[in-house]
Amino acid sequence: MRNTFGNIFTLTTFGESHGEAVGGIIDGMPAGIEVDMDFIQHQLDRRRPGQSQITTQRKEPDHVELLSGVYQGKTTGTPIGFMVRNTNQRSSDYNNMVDLFRPSHADYTYYNKYGLRDPRGGGRSSARITISRCVGGALAMLALQQLGITIQAYTTQVGDIKLEGDYTHYDLSQIDSNIVRCPDLEKAQQMEALIREVKADGDTIGGVIACVIKGCPVGLGEPEFDKLHAQLGAAMLGINAVKGFEYGLGFDGVSQRGSQQNDVFVAHHGQITTRTNNSGGIQGGISNGQNIYFRVAFKPVATLLRSQNTVDANGCATVLQAKGRHDPCVLPRAVPIVESMAAMVLLDNYLLNKTVHI
Amino acid sequence: MRNTFGNIFTLTTFGESHGEAVGGIIDGMPAGIEVDMDFIQHQLDRRRPGQSQITTQRKEPDHVELLSGVYQGKTTGTPIGFMVRNTNQRSSDYNNMVDLFRPSHADYTYYNKYGLRDPRGGGRSSARITISRCVGGALAMLALQQLGITIQAYTTQVGDIKLEGDYTHYDLSQIDSNIVRCPDLEKAQQMEALIREVKADGDTIGGVIACVIKGCPVGLGEPEFDKLHAQLGAAMLGINAVKGFEYGLGFDGVSQRGSQQNDVFVAHHGQITTRTNNSGGIQGGISNGQNIYFRVAFKPVATLLRSQNTVDANGCATVLQAKGRHDPCVLPRAVPIVESMAAMVLLDNYLLNKTVHI
Amino acid sequence: MRNTFGNIFTLTTFGESHGEAVGGIIDGMPAGIEVDMDFIQHQLDRRRPGQSQITTQRKEPDHVELLSGVYQGKTTGTPIGFMVRNTNQRSSDYNNMVDLFRPSHADYTYYNKYGLRDPRGGGRSSARITISRCVGGALAMLALQQLGITIQAYTTQVGDIKLEGDYTHYDLSQIDSNIVRCPDLEKAQQMEALIREVKADGDTIGGVIACVIKGCPVGLGEPEFDKLHAQLGAAMLGINAVKGFEYGLGFDGVSQRGSQQNDVFVAHHGQITTRTNNSGGIQGGISNGQNIYFRVAFKPVATLLRSQNTVDANGCATVLQAKGRHDPCVLPRAVPIVESMAAMVLLDNYLLNKTVHI
Amino acid sequence: MRNTFGNIFTLTTFGESHGEAVGGIIDGMPAGIEVDMDFIQHQLDRRRPGQSQITTQRKEPDHVELLSGVYQGKTTGTPIGFMVRNTNQRSSDYNNMVDLFRPSHADYTYYNKYGLRDPRGGGRSSARITISRCVGGALAMLALQQLGITIQAYTTQVGDIKLEGDYTHYDLSQIDSNIVRCPDLEKAQQMEALIREVKADGDTIGGVIACVIKGCPVGLGEPEFDKLHAQLGAAMLGINAVKGFEYGLGFDGVSQRGSQQNDVFVAHHGQITTRTNNSGGIQGGISNGQNIYFRVAFKPVATLLRSQNTVDANGCATVLQAKGRHDPCVLPRAVPIVESMAAMVLLDNYLLNKTVHI
Repeated sequence: MRNTFGNIFTLTTFGESHGEAVGGIIDGMPAGIEVDMDFIQHQLDRRRPGQSQITTQRKEPDHVELLSGVYQGKTTGTPIGFMVRNTNQRSSDYNNMVDLFRPSHADYTYYNKYGLRDPRGGGRSSARITISRCVGGALAMLALQQLGITIQAYTTQVGDIKLEGDYTHYDLSQIDSNIVRCPDLEKAQQMEALIREVKADGDTIGGVIACVIKGCPVGLGEPEFDKLHAQLGAAMLGINAVKGFEYGLGFDGVSQRGSQQNDVFVAHHGQITTRTNNSGGIQGGISNGQNIYFRVAFKPVATLLRSQNTVDANGCATVLQAKGRHDPCVLPRAVPIVESMAAMVLLDNYLLNKTVHI
Repeated sequence: MRNTFGNIFTLTTFGESHGEAVGGIIDGMPAGIEVDMDFIQHQLDRRRPGQSQITTQRKEPDHVELLSGVYQGKTTGTPIGFMVRNTNQRSSDYNNMVDLFRPSHADYTYYNKYGLRDPRGGGRSSARITISRCVGGALAMLALQQLGITIQAYTTQVGDIKLEGDYTHYDLSQIDSNIVRCPDLEKAQQMEALIREVKADGDTIGGVIACVIKGCPVGLGEPEFDKLHAQLGAAMLGINAVKGFEYGLGFDGVSQRGSQQNDVFVAHHGQITTRTNNSGGIQGGISNGQNIYFRVAFKPVATLLRSQNTVDANGCATVLQAKGRHDPCVLPRAVPIVESMAAMVLLDNYLLNKTVHI
Repeated sequence: MRNTFGNIFTLTTFGESHGEAVGGIIDGMPAGIEVDMDFIQHQLDRRRPGQSQITTQRKEPDHVELLSGVYQGKTTGTPIGFMVRNTNQRSSDYNNMVDLFRPSHADYTYYNKYGLRDPRGGGRSSARITISRCVGGALAMLALQQLGITIQAYTTQVGDIKLEGDYTHYDLSQIDSNIVRCPDLEKAQQMEALIREVKADGDTIGGVIACVIKGCPVGLGEPEFDKLHAQLGAAMLGINAVKGFEYGLGFDGVSQRGSQQNDVFVAHHGQITTRTNNSGGIQGGISNGQNIYFRVAFKPVATLLRSQNTVDANGCATVLQAKGRHDPCVLPRAVPIVESMAAMVLLDNYLLNKTVHI
Repeated sequence: MRNTFGNIFTLTTFGESHGEAVGGIIDGMPAGIEVDMDFIQHQLDRRRPGQSQITTQRKEPDHVELLSGVYQGKTTGTPIGFMVRNTNQRSSDYNNMVDLFRPSHADYTYYNKYGLRDPRGGGRSSARITISRCVGGALAMLALQQLGITIQAYTTQVGDIKLEGDYTHYDLSQIDSNIVRCPDLEKAQQMEALIREVKADGDTIGGVIACVIKGCPVGLGEPEFDKLHAQLGAAMLGINAVKGFEYGLGFDGVSQRGSQQNDVFVAHHGQITTRTNNSGGIQGGISNGQNIYFRVAFKPVATLLRSQNTVDANGCATVLQAKGRHDPCVLPRAVPIVESMAAMVLLDNYLLNKTVHI
């Protein structure tokens, strides 16, 4: 509830943008897994600001420190506490925002919910908080690797520029070959150009991230409320700026007929499989052994580097002149976060599924 | 976890399509609420099969019995057990399906997950299970009514026939004036015609349901993983046949710029409000007092009244000739289910939000 | 939370003494377990009223109906709904209690907590509610049987009459040979005589139930808050009329020195074991493979068949003249409840422990 | 589950005795509470080692750092991350214990549960972990203070030396006047002498801590599984070395008759109260407005400063010669831990109880 994610493998997080640190506790991590610190840091680096010219210029190394739960390089089965110190805050950037509500941000809702709020850098509503998700996700991935499960996300749309095909049409090894994290290099260039244009304009732009999970065994997911895709959906919708989630054919598939969309079962070398995968790897809320794929919609970032009209806490009209360092487009940095959330859902369900039989 | 929904106000369900009964337990229902049995039954009637010519002809009265938690017409604060007896099962319809896997159904995944399955009517994966959600949702609505919160869902798309505008363009009092549950009567007729055509063809068709929540106070939703829209998304994605969820501008909004999409705050008669509502009533995961609206994508029903190729448990190719009574389009009956899930999410968050202050 | 017990294997209950039914939902029951209805009913019969002259004379057959989750005699892994109809209510017995608070009962606290209460038979606070626990426990025992784990509880003290030794001194096959459920037949006779004497006096008497769990594997229990004995303690303290819990040497052991109480490890035929078992089979909150044993203190039942002074809801002094049918001593009927709660804790922890490794 | 305590107000902990740090995350802390850092540190100081000659000589300042959730001295309603660095580890003390199992410690059970263990200072099973509980408890107390609820624990028995009366017989302001934390100064001296004698002998001794909660409103606690005393019991049994819990008359009351033990309701200046308080302030699992009191049994510490026989991981007999710095009696340092756990239970239930009505 609230700041905890998952049932068996859980991540509980803390931290604000300009507080002492952000971090969390991973509970239910299986014992005996080798902890590859380089991999964890690598995922953090893919998320961190300042990594390219199209991301925010806040430059923090985001060095993670594991505080417990690891002994002689292996997980012990006890909780893993971790934190990343906040080092590059420029809280003074927010001095002019203390008493006003930034449009489409959480200022107004936090203030009304809690009766007070930490205005520095968006406080808890900052995307800086997703650091903890990347750490949790990276540890989950280390366990999933041993099970042969891989997760790859990529930018499939920025503004109106979009990839036409699904993941089967691209070489996913190219995702990190460009700063947009799009496997189609030509589209990637167009996306990058659009982001630069939007940035020059002091504006922001949205987009869509696609994700594919390969190697998932049959049987993960719970039939009723905790369908696998319901869990994946909640995980993605919890990421800052996400406005939509769809899996398999998603919204586009609603205009099809059942006879078109049904995935016919066939036997292939003695293995039961499906001829098509319109179901996106999940049937009745449970993984069916095919690739799982889904798409996540991100709105344009609310923080603009141009003036906006708004009101202050007294309801008086005023003008907001943003000064912070912000992303013109969150998608490149959100790719590892999407992967991380998916990884935690998968591992959590894998573990829970072990309890179906005694 | 698994068959329980919610944190403070919770619904735990049981039942299979052809078992003795379906039902559940509602826990955390506030004390002292008057229980309007007619309203609860009304919501069940809107969901039940056989209510019109475009729904399945399985005719069950679906009479709900409350077994506890109510005394002299009021809730006592103790758990409300309830059940609906299954009376109109025709299990013999499924005799030919015991050993084969219906395409895009849960047969294959259940069988592999549990090692055995109840093949009668889809067992637990049947949409009959959603009866329990309607009961839980109806009770939640009785509490929400006292808070001035209303929830209205309607069919906004069937196949390629769709309403162009959002909820603000229609008279929502017309939703139940037609069997499709669409507030645009002309489109409703077209949708109905399409469903009849598809049905005559032994086929099925998907669509989209829209939902709007009015009167929600500021402050509901939790900032991190349990953002209000993440909870609504999980709730909707848990409904049978749902493939996507979006709120506010959703997927369409990703091609906009921040300067277009941001909802500027203005003061209106001393009240702070927003000029537009692209955020869909939720900012930073917390309700902002504007109307909450979202859309839910339903795939075409997997059960066809025509033959389909498939395999049996041994992987041998076979032909499935469906005989059951099924819906050519689930949307009309899914409207109260969408409302019910939303109601439970709202009440749960309303109650949790009371704990923010001592 | 509230009316749900357990984490992986969970029991959620509903029902009041004089409502329509009592029952519950068992979730997380492993799939493929054979359901022995005779055994479940047997456990209910050991709990039911009217089984002997020293229990309440309310005579209900307490026939349990399983409503879901079982197919062809085996559990399917889906939730098991169940209920027992209330058939022998004499609500008129409680007419004189509607407006007053029975001493040491829950009337006053329920009324103040909820603002209203169901006065018939104690409503939800009635021990009749423990029926659901016996059903949940019986199903858990069916799974534990396959793992070689057995649970036996017995009456070890009634009033001042107590067994001097622990479980190792008695033939536990004799527990059900007498209506007190005490394995020492001589003491059993004395206890029975005391209960008859107390009953004749319109009074009640307390006692202690001991319980031993054999065959528990090493490793069950979670190190921090959910230590195995903390879970067992919570389970027992949740039973009506329980006032204390201790395991291993318990309260008596506090006056010992560490050098006396420590259980020295020894190797026995290549197996590591402990020379003594003062720890009660649990070390650091985790089962160590030795027998687990604990003791549960029950206060004398609050309902007396003699007049008592009390006040009504207005604070006016009045006299309560009880008329119901009540137990002079709850221990004989509480024995299967203690076993049931222990069984659910054990199975829940067994399942959770499967998730420690991938 | 596992390393999280509570439902609404929750504490999740991490850390091992000789790891980088111990700490945790407090979630659900009400917003707007002033954070008195001196009080938090004071509670930690009452728990810390080296505070007197009868506690372990491991000298750590145990300085707590709050990492989030507080802004301008007040809680913001967001999670409070905190940690205490481990600074005074002497891991070499444990070099000789890596391959053997200390009697009545968690070495054997951890090793078998997880397949590996951190042997330094007992790893996660160390009582050092209770630091996090004291921080969580101190924050809970800051909220409870505003509600007029106070919690006081004290040592009531060490070995065979015990206070004869309950809390009503002593001046509780004297608890911290002596290093044993016993309000009876004469008994305190005897207890201290006994602890010194035991320590000189390289041995350890157990005892009992009593606790009283004053000012608790009527209505806290949930009727079924989460009875207030069941939650308190679980909280206490989760503390290292605890073997038993009882409330009200507890085990001693079982030999009474109902007519003796029942608490008769009386009106006192228009207020309903009870003539006696044998119920310990809880009826039907719910607080009744009287003082809540309970007792907690602690076994003698397992670590002795004398040699003990044991076996190693291969089952070979060996001798353990302890070298660490340990407590001859944990009770003086456990007093603030008992208070802390009680405080968290109370606040959690207070918050949950706000959701009973809309």
